[in-house]
Amino acid sequence: MLVVQKYGGTSVGSLDLIRNVAHRVKKTKEEGHDVIVVVSAMGRTTDELLKMAYTLSSSPPERELDMLASTGEQVSIALLSIALHDLGCPAISLTGAQAGIITDSLFTRARIVRMDTWKIGEELSKGKVVIVAGFQGMNEKGEITTLGRGGSDTTAVALAAAMKADVCEIYTDVDGVFTADPRIVPEARKLREITYDEMLEMAIAGAKVLQHRAVEFAKRFSVPLHVRSSFNYNEGTWVKEEISMERRGVVTGVTVDKKIAKVTLLGVPDIPGIAHKFTKALAESGINIDMIIQSEPRGGYNDISFTIGEGDLEKAMKILKELSDEIGAEGVTGDKEVAKVSIVGAGVCSNPEIPAIMFGTLAENNINIELISTSEVRISCVIREAKADTAVRALHKAFKLEEE
Amino acid sequence: MLVVQKYGGTSVGSLDLIRNVAHRVKKTKEEGHDVIVVVSAMGRTTDELLKMAYTLSSSPPERELDMLASTGEQVSIALLSIALHDLGCPAISLTGAQAGIITDSLFTRARIVRMDTWKIGEELSKGKVVIVAGFQGMNEKGEITTLGRGGSDTTAVALAAAMKADVCEIYTDVDGVFTADPRIVPEARKLREITYDEMLEMAIAGAKVLQHRAVEFAKRFSVPLHVRSSFNYNEGTWVKEEISMERRGVVTGVTVDKKIAKVTLLGVPDIPGIAHKFTKALAESGINIDMIIQSEPRGGYNDISFTIGEGDLEKAMKILKELSDEIGAEGVTGDKEVAKVSIVGAGVCSNPEIPAIMFGTLAENNINIELISTSEVRISCVIREAKADTAVRALHKAFKLEEE
Repeated sequence: MLVVQKYGGTSVGSLDLIRNVAHRVKKTKEEGHDVIVVVSAMGRTTDELLKMAYTLSSSPPERELDMLASTGEQVSIALLSIALHDLGCPAISLTGAQAGIITDSLFTRARIVRMDTWKIGEELSKGKVVIVAGFQGMNEKGEITTLGRGGSDTTAVALAAAMKADVCEIYTDVDGVFTADPRIVPEARKLREITYDEMLEMAIAGAKVLQHRAVEFAKRFSVPLHVRSSFNYNEGTWVKEEISMERRGVVTGVTVDKKIAKVTLLGVPDIPGIAHKFTKALAESGINIDMIIQSEPRGGYNDISFTIGEGDLEKAMKILKELSDEIGAEGVTGDKEVAKVSIVGAGVCSNPEIPAIMFGTLAENNINIELISTSEVRISCVIREAKADTAVRALHKAFKLEEE
Repeated sequence: MLVVQKYGGTSVGSLDLIRNVAHRVKKTKEEGHDVIVVVSAMGRTTDELLKMAYTLSSSPPERELDMLASTGEQVSIALLSIALHDLGCPAISLTGAQAGIITDSLFTRARIVRMDTWKIGEELSKGKVVIVAGFQGMNEKGEITTLGRGGSDTTAVALAAAMKADVCEIYTDVDGVFTADPRIVPEARKLREITYDEMLEMAIAGAKVLQHRAVEFAKRFSVPLHVRSSFNYNEGTWVKEEISMERRGVVTGVTVDKKIAKVTLLGVPDIPGIAHKFTKALAESGINIDMIIQSEPRGGYNDISFTIGEGDLEKAMKILKELSDEIGAEGVTGDKEVAKVSIVGAGVCSNPEIPAIMFGTLAENNINIELISTSEVRISCVIREAKADTAVRALHKAFKLEEE
């Protein structure tokens, strides 16, 4: 069997933890499997590197940020390879570039365009564990790129897809995917299985256990994912196409994302092309818009609200203030004190009771809903951030998620 | 003019110092020159990285040590590029591999075999400052290699040679090359000029200001070197082929190397091939032998003594103990409490008074000479380490080096 294992930053946060990972990898190898390991940077290394960059400049060039940040994973792969050698387990480390991960040139958020995996295949056939730096690649010009936050998950899944691995194991510091964040809801339950679509919605909705691009990749190439802890040998959560009928609940989980901001354009003239104008301007600056709603026009004007990542608020406000003058809007407001609470599950949209229970539960708890959005398998509400934990606990209880 | 500037670890030891370097580089660029900058890792980064490796394993694979250590310079180039951008000075950072520094596969001590500098030329022609990671390269298989301690000097000189630079400036934390280490001899004087051969001998003899491989490279390709401080704008020391007649003294400087060890093979049978046998064994383990002497044979046996780097002693003793049994020698002794004191100067061997003054001065100070070796421009004596500073001060005075 070919196994891809990905270890996140908390799993390789110290030399002792790297030794722990080496033991796990060696064990897998000794069970007779071929093993490709993808590792993140140790602990908070990436943040520390970027902090240095931003100390030197308020707007460092993105190419150089990638040159800088990519060293974090390079340190991890070398150290893990050394730890494996010390256990007598042959291993070789490869940077993203050496592993043949070819990306586009969108520095700090590059996308994989091609995988030239001959080198990995060659080293596996020599009986070596191949350790690949997560989060990074190389563009066609040989420049180092990074895949954005959580990019190591994407590296692992892309490698699993390209190498036709039997499983991609995502190791983290929790036991798997839970019905809600156990730090908020103590009775939250670990899910044994979840579909790609549900996982995708949970990732988008703010569950941090897997990066959503990685889940998209896994879905597209049908890579079975196994999310589990690097600190024990418990079974984690399997993410796959179809899950057993008997396990299927209507609602799978409740998530919360506090790192969002709400922006409102006030008094926008109700003429065609306005929404396109500002979404284009934001997209060109790399700002993703999540939920968006437009009020009923009143007197030829309406308000447009949407959510973005909290970290993008400053940049977005600058862009929108200029645009707002240009299109003759009244003004722009930004608000960080909001959170997005979502329920996710294959059945949420086919069952009309579900939204009713959700909105009713929030109302009973005196929680005002500011924006609503839905997808096939998700309903999200933007509420005050201060009420987010209360909302998650109430919804978890209302949908009886603590029961198997 | 094309200027190559190399900044060592102490010159880029903090973010403030990196900003300082950025200002210097920008100034050079604004004077109308094309600039290639080579930087070392920040401060003690390389040592810290290697310490992690040796915590995980007592004998980490050298390929992985290079993968690990090379990240230090990669961090520096990215940060310097960011600092330059912040000053409005266009710049681009390149790893050794990206800069086209192709080496052999002797990991941790690789040698440059070829320079593919088209990428550097392309970026220079766009008006950019090109920042290259020192100390590192890539073998023909695309694996990261490092050039060994002090390798950034070699990177800078090799780039200056390949790009036909007008000068290679070596920035450090001292004002240039001195007649002796000013920490030992307060009246030591900065040299305005020195020949490649003298510099080479001084580097071999223990002056740490320039790595000897870099000087060899500079000599072979006639690259003028200017050794100077990154903390002021004083003229430093020029290293070149010929120096002005009027400046020529007989003795140029006194150096000391305390990081050596003396090894003695006792009672070695006086038959051909013995010296070859152990030098070969040591060379294969990457241990350089410096001075070597063989005693007059007595009763068909003699003693062989030589010096090696202090850090190699343990490894050398292990190899030599095995060999000593094999060749029927009496035993091996190792001694770290020794130092090598040298006088260097174009005239030392053509003037018979010089060795007489040297040995006489040591004798007057009750310093016993254990080994002697000479070259065209150097006389070295191995003495007790505890007497090394006394010897240096006495020799500096005896040869009147404080006088211009």
